[in-house]
Amino acid sequence: MGFTLRRFLGVTPSRALPLLPFLLTLLFVKSRGESNAMDNVATERLAEESHRQDSANLLIFIMLLTLTILTIWLFKHRRFRFLHETGLAMIYGLLVGVILRFGVHVPQSISDVVLSCAVNASPATLLVNVSGRFYEYTLKGEVSRGKGHQVQDDEMLRKVTFDPEVFFNILLPPIIFHAGYSLKREHRLHPGFAFIGTVISCFVIGLIMYGFVSFMKVVGQLGGDFFFTDCLFFGAIVSATDPVTVLAIFNELKVDVDLYALLFGESVLNDAVAIVLSSSIVAYQPTGDNSHSFEAMALLKSFGIFLGVFSGSFALGVATGFMTFTKLRDFPLLETALFFLMSWSTFLLAEACGFTGVVAVLFCGITQAHYTFNNLSPDSQDRTKQLFELLNFLAENFIFSYMGLTLFSFQSHVFNPLFIIGAFLAVFIGRAANIYPLSFLLNLGRKNKIGSKFQHVMMFAGLRGAMTFALSIRDTATYARQMMFSTTLLIVFFTVWICGGGTTPMLSFMSIPVGVDSDQDNTRRNTKHESAWPFRIWYNFDHNYLKPLLTHSGPPLTATMPACCGPLARCLTSPQAYENEGQLHDDDSDFILNDANVSSMYADVTVTTDASGSRTTNHKHSYATSSGGNPFDEGLDQELSMAENEVAIRGTRLVLPMDDPVEPPTTVTLHGYLF
Amino acid sequence: MGFTLRRFLGVTPSRALPLLPFLLTLLFVKSRGESNAMDNVATERLAEESHRQDSANLLIFIMLLTLTILTIWLFKHRRFRFLHETGLAMIYGLLVGVILRFGVHVPQSISDVVLSCAVNASPATLLVNVSGRFYEYTLKGEVSRGKGHQVQDDEMLRKVTFDPEVFFNILLPPIIFHAGYSLKREHRLHPGFAFIGTVISCFVIGLIMYGFVSFMKVVGQLGGDFFFTDCLFFGAIVSATDPVTVLAIFNELKVDVDLYALLFGESVLNDAVAIVLSSSIVAYQPTGDNSHSFEAMALLKSFGIFLGVFSGSFALGVATGFMTFTKLRDFPLLETALFFLMSWSTFLLAEACGFTGVVAVLFCGITQAHYTFNNLSPDSQDRTKQLFELLNFLAENFIFSYMGLTLFSFQSHVFNPLFIIGAFLAVFIGRAANIYPLSFLLNLGRKNKIGSKFQHVMMFAGLRGAMTFALSIRDTATYARQMMFSTTLLIVFFTVWICGGGTTPMLSFMSIPVGVDSDQDNTRRNTKHESAWPFRIWYNFDHNYLKPLLTHSGPPLTATMPACCGPLARCLTSPQAYENEGQLHDDDSDFILNDANVSSMYADVTVTTDASGSRTTNHKHSYATSSGGNPFDEGLDQELSMAENEVAIRGTRLVLPMDDPVEPPTTVTLHGYLF
Repeated sequence: MGFTLRRFLGVTPSRALPLLPFLLTLLFVKSRGESNAMDNVATERLAEESHRQDSANLLIFIMLLTLTILTIWLFKHRRFRFLHETGLAMIYGLLVGVILRFGVHVPQSISDVVLSCAVNASPATLLVNVSGRFYEYTLKGEVSRGKGHQVQDDEMLRKVTFDPEVFFNILLPPIIFHAGYSLKREHRLHPGFAFIGTVISCFVIGLIMYGFVSFMKVVGQLGGDFFFTDCLFFGAIVSATDPVTVLAIFNELKVDVDLYALLFGESVLNDAVAIVLSSSIVAYQPTGDNSHSFEAMALLKSFGIFLGVFSGSFALGVATGFMTFTKLRDFPLLETALFFLMSWSTFLLAEACGFTGVVAVLFCGITQAHYTFNNLSPDSQDRTKQLFELLNFLAENFIFSYMGLTLFSFQSHVFNPLFIIGAFLAVFIGRAANIYPLSFLLNLGRKNKIGSKFQHVMMFAGLRGAMTFALSIRDTATYARQMMFSTTLLIVFFTVWICGGGTTPMLSFMSIPVGVDSDQDNTRRNTKHESAWPFRIWYNFDHNYLKPLLTHSGPPLTATMPACCGPLARCLTSPQAYENEGQLHDDDSDFILNDANVSSMYADVTVTTDASGSRTTNHKHSYATSSGGNPFDEGLDQELSMAENEVAIRGTRLVLPMDDPVEPPTTVTLHGYLF
Repeated sequence: MGFTLRRFLGVTPSRALPLLPFLLTLLFVKSRGESNAMDNVATERLAEESHRQDSANLLIFIMLLTLTILTIWLFKHRRFRFLHETGLAMIYGLLVGVILRFGVHVPQSISDVVLSCAVNASPATLLVNVSGRFYEYTLKGEVSRGKGHQVQDDEMLRKVTFDPEVFFNILLPPIIFHAGYSLKREHRLHPGFAFIGTVISCFVIGLIMYGFVSFMKVVGQLGGDFFFTDCLFFGAIVSATDPVTVLAIFNELKVDVDLYALLFGESVLNDAVAIVLSSSIVAYQPTGDNSHSFEAMALLKSFGIFLGVFSGSFALGVATGFMTFTKLRDFPLLETALFFLMSWSTFLLAEACGFTGVVAVLFCGITQAHYTFNNLSPDSQDRTKQLFELLNFLAENFIFSYMGLTLFSFQSHVFNPLFIIGAFLAVFIGRAANIYPLSFLLNLGRKNKIGSKFQHVMMFAGLRGAMTFALSIRDTATYARQMMFSTTLLIVFFTVWICGGGTTPMLSFMSIPVGVDSDQDNTRRNTKHESAWPFRIWYNFDHNYLKPLLTHSGPPLTATMPACCGPLARCLTSPQAYENEGQLHDDDSDFILNDANVSSMYADVTVTTDASGSRTTNHKHSYATSSGGNPFDEGLDQELSMAENEVAIRGTRLVLPMDDPVEPPTTVTLHGYLF
């Protein structure tokens, strides 16, 4: 009774210890004859008590979230912008952590309950014979020798401690999926930026930290082992930038879309690269005795793992994204459920295959936003968006409030002032070494340069968030990892509160224009110069073959494929594609015409599209006409249709970069994009 | 690494056993010096392997659900009605169970890995010293003596076995909440029907089963203990009727609303009563040696527990339902998140207080549907409905497919033919003893009698579903409970497939009208005779005081409270209530005017409300006029306003019975309602 919540919380059942004397008394005072029934009652009571406590502990978090929501509302209502909701969640978490740590005192009732029995193996299951009754024990993990006496310390704090894997398996996936799913056409991903940038940042931070750690060793400030791989690992985990906080502020302030798109694309891919990078670094295991020396083979193997895991996760995510080719338009509930299940199964499938579920989910989200979304009924489009928005919101605020809590509830913090100073410095330099050179390189290839002000803002906006936290809390067994975790926590706090809170002043200091109309900006941005030939090739392939194959929109394959493939094309094209043929251009040009005021741009044509509703009507109308349906206003309609067509074509051809994640996942090609 | 999913699945980690020889070899072949690093690698690999398997197992269920959804779509598309989706989910579950049981063979690699070490207590945590390294083990539970050798049996089947508490803590709450939240005004709850009905059914079934069990004992067919309390417990769990299947069919076929409302109200409350009843029966513990004899004090205590837990859960649910008095209308995301969290915290709070979370959640849902829903923004109303609809759909199909699976994957089935025959007979008689006498009693008090055909359909429609399954799988430790579980499974299969599938033929055989326009029917039903005085008093209280206090709608308290309470009333009334004053009647009469064609009913007034959209506009308009705003069409508007007012008042006063769950939760009062 009541084991589930405990398992879900991932806390050890040792909280039941205070009740143990009671149980023990019952066990031994009673005569053997009737002890059976009484035992059951006692065990049940124990289980029930533990279940109640689990519920109460989970309730603390729910209340925290509720409080956060109410305060967010207050902030939004009063238009406070100096603190984002995630920063707020952290503060509440901190407060609760302080209360639990110093306010609540749970008496330590038992001095020595931890038994020791010597066997010569550590099986996963252990049967313990207690005076003729068998109890099943499961392996929880190895305990470090020094920790043995700490097991009973601070019951209350242990109770609110989650299994770190909860973050990876339950809380991160919706956040990452949502990031992918809310990628819009105008958010151009720069895989090169993300790949090279993250790797640069990781190695720069790793090297600087190695310098610091070596110095610390010399002055005797280091309390345990800290290898170069640990430094690199630290570099990888703090290289994951959080898309949430700054982008929320940018969105609210209507900051220049170009900056927004750059940052968003960077953050989304950064996370994916950082997680795979960190696991590759962990996998770096030179053979032989000296297990932390440099070895070319092991490095190559690590690199292979990186490529393999990344491309595997990528392929899996894209594949399941493609598979969700739903035809359930008439039943939004079924459609939404299927959509949700497919996203989840992507995660599970990737984990089952040994890839990284979070990365697979990201690319699944991107693919679904690009293809599947077009197949959904309008109702399901709303539903899925809202569902993932809600899940993302809850998971995110949960992680951030938990982050605040761990500053006080985590029991093995190692705060080393030198290491912390080094880390802050390294993070700063790493970010700079990432942003400025890459911006320079990117600027070589583009007419619409990334200005130096933008570069400063991007430098400033490199917040660390949920992914960094989840990666650092995953393993806190060794001294090195504990020090990393404590330091990472401080880095997250600092960046979210100081950088996040300082975004608005920073923007006004840099005199970056705010309140920009995103659509005017869009059209400005979409100038022809940017469409390099690989994008153009990819776009044509996507538009002519993938879209018709995978969605109900797009031109029929019969029109785009060579005549010799006629029968195949007919069989592969969705029947709806023919009906939708006219609306296709409408779909593709959405980002440009959407609640836009295009008339100012194309003043020579009298197309005024003030509201999306009226525009659409207008639109269908015009195509219906051009395919020979509507008899009235033919002349004007023809003109309109042509004008809109032109807009559509201009628009679609020029936003190619958002399509490139669907390119074959080799880093070489992706690097090629950058230059 | 990877512990969470395992915990979530609730399967024992013994699946890692096949890898153990590998680990052991590594442990002992390597020299002690470098065994440390290699151990870590091996342990990590073990954990990773186990994590992969967990993901794969969960994937099986996701795939099952996906398959179910696709088939449901096919069925809906082709308008098959002989099998409901839940029945379908069960069939798929069965198939997968068969495959896992007979198709997949996992070789048993290790003969004897279960170690035994003798200590004299069973603490929650155990430290095991394996050649100088400490491993932490956690208590999983007691293992029955005979089971010791079975631990390695059927790895694969153990892997897909969930912790039963998953059902109570994760899967049931959304289902029950959704049932409460989707209660509409016209679904009149008959608390008396549910209370007395469930108790009658429980005792009738319990007594019949006791007779059968005694007979089985005489003929030597009973393989273990089976006490009278066990019989009563069985009676309680099979008395929970499932609202899902039949109602879905009724809804689709547009069966008479009266029948639908009766069945829905009955099923919703039945579940709540059955769960509390079963836990009270479990709590029946006579003191002294003879622990299964009759004892008045223990019975009284059980009865007290029943009342206490039920009213406590009720009060908690209603209280948190009241508390969700949201003012976040401008931020639908925050509102939806808050709503979701409040529902969840109701569950946790009830569990933490020792009440029944599921019951609390039911009443929380009912209260929120009645009060909070009115405070939500239209966007949030949609979002919350869709969210809980989705959660309900997923949880329900998951439970039913798992049900099918357990028929083959559960390892301790006890199929006793005599017991099964007895159980089917008892369930049939118990249902009859519930429906017919109560319908007779109910008919005494109403003009609009429940016809004998309706009674037959209600008799037939008593499906057993998710709640019955969850209650029976919760504890399968003893012989009696195992036999109950196996039998319950058969009862669920039979009722869902045969009764559920036979509903359509049954309806046509009974010539119950289908395709009834629910709104015409509504007005027919809502005749004045039915509103007994307690309903009228409750309604007036609800309308004049609770609604204005708890929602933004309703007349301002200043208008309804005595003049002496003026300042208090002003301070308690929501500012919006004044604005909404005019729309109040609109709200209350929604169920009558909603997409209805009222003109046929009130032919003397020229109110034609064909579509809800145009009606609302019309409406506000008319009130705006009467409060002195709009200058044109004044005469007609006045007339309209009056006419609609009349309709509204007629409508609202006559649907009182749906309000009664909010009455103080004493069984005495509730019984009073029945007669």
